[in-house]
Amino acid sequence: MKKVLVLEGSSRPNGNTEALTNVLMNGIERTTIFLREKNILPIVDKRHDEDGFSIVNDDHDALMKAVFSHDILVFSTPIYWYSMSGIMKNFVDRWSQTARDERFQMKEEMKRKEAYVVICGGDQPRIKGLPLIQQFQHTFHFVGISFQDYIIGHAGKPGEIWNDTYALSAAQALNDVIKEKIHTQP
Amino acid sequence: MKKVLVLEGSSRPNGNTEALTNVLMNGIERTTIFLREKNILPIVDKRHDEDGFSIVNDDHDALMKAVFSHDILVFSTPIYWYSMSGIMKNFVDRWSQTARDERFQMKEEMKRKEAYVVICGGDQPRIKGLPLIQQFQHTFHFVGISFQDYIIGHAGKPGEIWNDTYALSAAQALNDVIKEKIHTQP
Amino acid sequence: MKKVLVLEGSSRPNGNTEALTNVLMNGIERTTIFLREKNILPIVDKRHDEDGFSIVNDDHDALMKAVFSHDILVFSTPIYWYSMSGIMKNFVDRWSQTARDERFQMKEEMKRKEAYVVICGGDQPRIKGLPLIQQFQHTFHFVGISFQDYIIGHAGKPGEIWNDTYALSAAQALNDVIKEKIHTQP
Amino acid sequence: MKKVLVLEGSSRPNGNTEALTNVLMNGIERTTIFLREKNILPIVDKRHDEDGFSIVNDDHDALMKAVFSHDILVFSTPIYWYSMSGIMKNFVDRWSQTARDERFQMKEEMKRKEAYVVICGGDQPRIKGLPLIQQFQHTFHFVGISFQDYIIGHAGKPGEIWNDTYALSAAQALNDVIKEKIHTQP
Repeated sequence: MKKVLVLEGSSRPNGNTEALTNVLMNGIERTTIFLREKNILPIVDKRHDEDGFSIVNDDHDALMKAVFSHDILVFSTPIYWYSMSGIMKNFVDRWSQTARDERFQMKEEMKRKEAYVVICGGDQPRIKGLPLIQQFQHTFHFVGISFQDYIIGHAGKPGEIWNDTYALSAAQALNDVIKEKIHTQP
Repeated sequence: MKKVLVLEGSSRPNGNTEALTNVLMNGIERTTIFLREKNILPIVDKRHDEDGFSIVNDDHDALMKAVFSHDILVFSTPIYWYSMSGIMKNFVDRWSQTARDERFQMKEEMKRKEAYVVICGGDQPRIKGLPLIQQFQHTFHFVGISFQDYIIGHAGKPGEIWNDTYALSAAQALNDVIKEKIHTQP
Repeated sequence: MKKVLVLEGSSRPNGNTEALTNVLMNGIERTTIFLREKNILPIVDKRHDEDGFSIVNDDHDALMKAVFSHDILVFSTPIYWYSMSGIMKNFVDRWSQTARDERFQMKEEMKRKEAYVVICGGDQPRIKGLPLIQQFQHTFHFVGISFQDYIIGHAGKPGEIWNDTYALSAAQALNDVIKEKIHTQP
Repeated sequence: MKKVLVLEGSSRPNGNTEALTNVLMNGIERTTIFLREKNILPIVDKRHDEDGFSIVNDDHDALMKAVFSHDILVFSTPIYWYSMSGIMKNFVDRWSQTARDERFQMKEEMKRKEAYVVICGGDQPRIKGLPLIQQFQHTFHFVGISFQDYIIGHAGKPGEIWNDTYALSAAQALNDVIKEKIHTQP
């Protein structure tokens, strides 16, 4: 059975993105990590230093181990300024360090993963959120993750997501797809 | 009651895009125009000529009259090379002429319209079809049409659309939204 | 020495896009084809017909032969409604037919090509022209063409391109790059 | 005379993006802020809390005052995972708080600003960096900043930017434009 990890990028508990993600994940066993509860320092780019990256004493390595030990990743983030939250961005930025960390085989691990993305915003998200979707695609492609699908919710104020029948219906339809996928041998 | 016009851009009858559009439009009274059955010549750009555009003897003006006499426009096109079909593109290109045609008040007319878009493709359409959605947005914004929403179907071979539960569910959800909209006073 | 083919998509002679392309091509031996002077019918999609595509009696096959016999392709089109001209779009749409035409080895041919793109528009082209650039990328990627670079000119009225020092400088810089490339063995 | 503020988002001193930005800014009096030297905490979204945002004790307010007291803003960031650095993202995320801070008139201030963007990356930046440009556009549009132009450099390893004649030429051309703009009355 495939293992599912939800990475929540919001700075606010119980927001619209989280609610929409819960519709997508309804009845599916999963681990959820709230990135806001973790200590993830911004990357210090040392790709071109002779000695390479310095080990950083925060939660990033533990998070990457969680990523590696699951099969399906769900990136869930509100749209902050037409992009993922800075909280999630700092997490993703650090992948550049993990990719060069000999303790991990990031590329080997990542290319077995499948990903879904859930984003929500209040300002024409199904138009203005598209560059963010394209960035997820470029990122997933680079590390070898297979981008399965995404949901874009239209919601600003708390609870508004329940009016977005398009996103809710799409999430329910994908819920079935994921349930079947979980029980399918690769 | 609002009047609905479907503009079909496919070169092939009964294709996936048309099927998905019919799910979106199920039970909704509408006029459908198959652009492939019309004679629409490519634009000859004379915006900067002293005498302006020459009158063109084809079906374009009649099509624009149909557009003007409806309230909700549905642009339905298969994704050909990550964009709308050339058939539909020639139709849209000619708007530049209509916009300068004194017999019409295109900007006045267009700003009362609402639009939906349905596109289908076989090569990662929910990623690679996004530039096309952005172009529709820019086009609608320019002429004042209000872009309501869109559906992207994943289908190549005939009938494949029936496997795309995401798109079908989204289309059904939007069907309800449109039905309500039709009966609402502006 | 590499052979250069310029495909001009404008409906208007001596426009801004053509002028910018001539800056890019200054001093470079090339063949130029004005697509508006050719007869290119819209595609009739028969990919899924038992008998496949019907032979079409127009200029498309000759154009494809010209494409195949050159090494560097320059796609030059004004931005019409945030996309390539319908004239150029009908040409590209027909690639789907050529790809299935046993008289040609389109994929084999295309993967040896390098491409440049020149586009010009009057409405924030360096922002609103980006979806078009992305579509060229997807198209080139699909057929195996290597997308080298592009220039986006800001110009609406005749001659305005001469005020866009950004685009002119970029075109001159790329001119040097292309000149060197032409004389380099692959 | 217009005042210029450069906001550097890189985590690494003397990188390619900084070098390209220095070409753009050559001979232009400006203030430069290296965001990596500042303490900017991630936003905690309290837009919907009764009491609103809590005052945060870090460098963000001082940075916003610097923004407000300049006329031309240059956002300079390496492309990290096809987006701005997390360092810069946390800064931008906090604008949502500043916008609701009664001590500032952010919207009033911002709509007098003009912006340039400089980004650099090693993986097809002039294609895969386009979503980031679109996000800057959406962000600038939202707060009323006028997006003037941008430069995309192709460089990964230290010093590679000096091979990108396209970007260098464009930067030099924009340098002239900015110099003229600085001395022009609004």
